[in-house]
Amino acid sequence: MGGAKLAWGLAQVLPPEELLIVVNTGDDEEFYDLHVSPDLDTVMYTLAGLANPQTGWGIEGDSFNVLDMMAHYGAPSWFKLGDRDLATHIQRSRLLSAGQSLSQVTRRLCQSLGVQHRVVPMSDERLRTVVITDEGELSFQRYFVACRCRPQVHSLRFEGAGDARPAPEFAQALEQASGLIFCPSNPFLSIAPILALAGLRDRIASFSRGPRLAVSPIVHGQALRGPAGKLLGELGYEISCLGAARQYLGLCDIFVIDEQDADQAQAISELGLQVEIAQTVMSSDQDRVELANLLLRLLRA
Amino acid sequence: MGGAKLAWGLAQVLPPEELLIVVNTGDDEEFYDLHVSPDLDTVMYTLAGLANPQTGWGIEGDSFNVLDMMAHYGAPSWFKLGDRDLATHIQRSRLLSAGQSLSQVTRRLCQSLGVQHRVVPMSDERLRTVVITDEGELSFQRYFVACRCRPQVHSLRFEGAGDARPAPEFAQALEQASGLIFCPSNPFLSIAPILALAGLRDRIASFSRGPRLAVSPIVHGQALRGPAGKLLGELGYEISCLGAARQYLGLCDIFVIDEQDADQAQAISELGLQVEIAQTVMSSDQDRVELANLLLRLLRA
Repeated sequence: MGGAKLAWGLAQVLPPEELLIVVNTGDDEEFYDLHVSPDLDTVMYTLAGLANPQTGWGIEGDSFNVLDMMAHYGAPSWFKLGDRDLATHIQRSRLLSAGQSLSQVTRRLCQSLGVQHRVVPMSDERLRTVVITDEGELSFQRYFVACRCRPQVHSLRFEGAGDARPAPEFAQALEQASGLIFCPSNPFLSIAPILALAGLRDRIASFSRGPRLAVSPIVHGQALRGPAGKLLGELGYEISCLGAARQYLGLCDIFVIDEQDADQAQAISELGLQVEIAQTVMSSDQDRVELANLLLRLLRA
Repeated sequence: MGGAKLAWGLAQVLPPEELLIVVNTGDDEEFYDLHVSPDLDTVMYTLAGLANPQTGWGIEGDSFNVLDMMAHYGAPSWFKLGDRDLATHIQRSRLLSAGQSLSQVTRRLCQSLGVQHRVVPMSDERLRTVVITDEGELSFQRYFVACRCRPQVHSLRFEGAGDARPAPEFAQALEQASGLIFCPSNPFLSIAPILALAGLRDRIASFSRGPRLAVSPIVHGQALRGPAGKLLGELGYEISCLGAARQYLGLCDIFVIDEQDADQAQAISELGLQVEIAQTVMSSDQDRVELANLLLRLLRA
């Protein structure tokens, strides 16, 4: 959500040719034999102005008539796919079946929804976040949505890590971009799968064409409340700004924290990161644009 | 439509174990990589009390949100599949992919909708009605729905004719049933594909366990008005009660015509068929039940 909001803000202040939005696909899932890319869709719908701000997923005002009928047929219905949202998955699956890459499909879906900025999957190849629990191994969506995070989590595993390669536009951007921004997405669940791509951690570690920024996804220790908080607690992760900063060591030059966490600035700078304090909570469209503008100033400084 | 209405009537007056409803699947179509069986669904929805009486296809009161979004994505949207209807096709396709036969899938879908009577596809194998036109060969749905019957028709072809075998329950019923009824369905478009199954025409020709009835699908030369009339006219078929009766020669003992066509009774009986005159137009549920009861009396006479 924070990631999609900031992506929207950046899209307001940068022309399409100057922004590439790279999205986690470790959460992708096959459902009804359809390829569902929840994170890609959240970003795409957000940029298209279609996103449901209440849920953080799906299309605002969508109906659920297909899903209701599927439940009537005794089919799984835990994955709450709305009717219009389902069309996205049907069309994606058709185009993938016809031999297009996930990058190509995503570009085409975005064009249909009037999204001018480039949104790309982290990879056209399969890398999946697997949650290893006391009830067995579960896909991320199955753990998160179907099981409502109930099982006790032992560890995470990224299936395909080191094999799946960055999508072509992503790889090209790493050669040409004048800066990188890690949006305030969950570092363990949304950023880590990206870093698990073949060679990617090294490429970001050695990126030197401009500053690498990260916006802390943790504000006042609270961004990970709820089910994700339970998971990360069970994994023993430190849920704080400082804990998040540690995830980016060697990958990031400037770490942007919220005003509410100013007291952690000193500890974070002692990790060797430049710390910037800003209003990172994006409650309004204006907040998103202002944060985007601040990040651009830091990138260009 | 006439076929589904009479099937409904028969289901009111016969217990499930005494009725097997065999449905044409020559009109089946792949759409969005889903297996759509329009005739099976019309019968199933009619028996379940879900059918849309206005259109003759689909589910009453269905929404079209998936289709609208698919059109937005530039995908084909000529096949007017409603949202709840689409769930039927998704579930059918999932079960077929999992290795179930179309008969098994149909039984399961019917059970979910509370349909007690047995509805079976004519075959678990592929037999498709192909329309050969001046614009090339078209699947039946593509010709009928997408092209709105615009192309000039040269002939029909049943792809898989003579190879596709009757579905197991259909084959078994031919060995055990004490009578056969051809419902008032289009003889050229709905009955002919069934007769094109491997060995089926011979099996019906030699059926001797009881009477074989047909209800004329033509009433006052009018049942084939509209687009189907255009097609049959181009093919040179005679659109009359007598013309329809000729299609059943050697396959049928008793031919039931409508009161409005009493003047054709003599000519039809000269073909060697026993002719019965009845009210075959089913405007109400009561009409359907009364026609069903009449047919049962004829079968048991």
